[in-house]
Amino acid sequence: MKVSIHTLAVEQVAHTLQQLVGLLDKGAAHAEAKKFDSAVLVSSRLAPDMLPLSKQVQIVSDTAKFGVARLGGVEAPKWEDTEKTIDELKARVLKTIDFVKSVPASAFEGGEDRDIKIQIPNRTLEMKGLTYLRGWLLPNFFFHVSMTYAILRHNGVDIGKRDYLGELK
Amino acid sequence: MKVSIHTLAVEQVAHTLQQLVGLLDKGAAHAEAKKFDSAVLVSSRLAPDMLPLSKQVQIVSDTAKFGVARLGGVEAPKWEDTEKTIDELKARVLKTIDFVKSVPASAFEGGEDRDIKIQIPNRTLEMKGLTYLRGWLLPNFFFHVSMTYAILRHNGVDIGKRDYLGELK
Repeated sequence: MKVSIHTLAVEQVAHTLQQLVGLLDKGAAHAEAKKFDSAVLVSSRLAPDMLPLSKQVQIVSDTAKFGVARLGGVEAPKWEDTEKTIDELKARVLKTIDFVKSVPASAFEGGEDRDIKIQIPNRTLEMKGLTYLRGWLLPNFFFHVSMTYAILRHNGVDIGKRDYLGELK
Repeated sequence: MKVSIHTLAVEQVAHTLQQLVGLLDKGAAHAEAKKFDSAVLVSSRLAPDMLPLSKQVQIVSDTAKFGVARLGGVEAPKWEDTEKTIDELKARVLKTIDFVKSVPASAFEGGEDRDIKIQIPNRTLEMKGLTYLRGWLLPNFFFHVSMTYAILRHNGVDIGKRDYLGELK
């Protein structure tokens, strides 16, 4: 009745990141078919005071990156949030996949008991690795992929849940 | 480096379902403050060919219900999708929490190796419990909670990520 942190934080996360690349591809194809600049999608939001698609993807990347770094006990690479185009966002996701996959399964040994600290505005959250994985990494990761999906879908891009889930293996 | 299926499929899912109740409460309060019928939110969508909020919540409920039933080897209760108001949707989520929590941790023993079958239109998906948990249950569950959030947020309900995540424990 046990599953490894590696299968969740690396295998599943890398899989869903690859699906996100496909979602962004469909966004770019839609813009081309409708003859509008795909950068419009990059700055689209679901509400005026909500983060745009670019930031949603950057947070997906950071959530995945810090997830494996914290649970695997390795250093996270530093990436600036400078992406302005769909192609740049895709490149960000692809390098996130590379980093996530670079951390070996053995690094996650005992990850559920690691002390995790997260700096948020005006507060530091402290928790064990298990709580972090379950209550922070996975919910946040899927949330921001879903918000990216929602922004694309709301703007007419022809995507469905299979594009999000991908093939099950 | 192992985490239990129970902590993911029951503890985390029940926690996020409780946050969903809070999101629906904020939707109802918003409708009351703005003096519109909250049933408008229940039938709202992000795109004309996308499922409305009511169906998003029903799928959240079904995903959680079938998740613990399949992985825990117990029978899932049958619930009709008849909810038309925020209060009815909240009741649906609350009874989902009760059912999910009713399955004891011991029932998930060996759940990762169970043979899972999912009937989808024109196809039966077959997979092991681990693939189902990782690639279906969790991504679908968080996706449909996030779509509910997105519909409320898009319609002006004052919610933020903390309402989705809740307190970490």
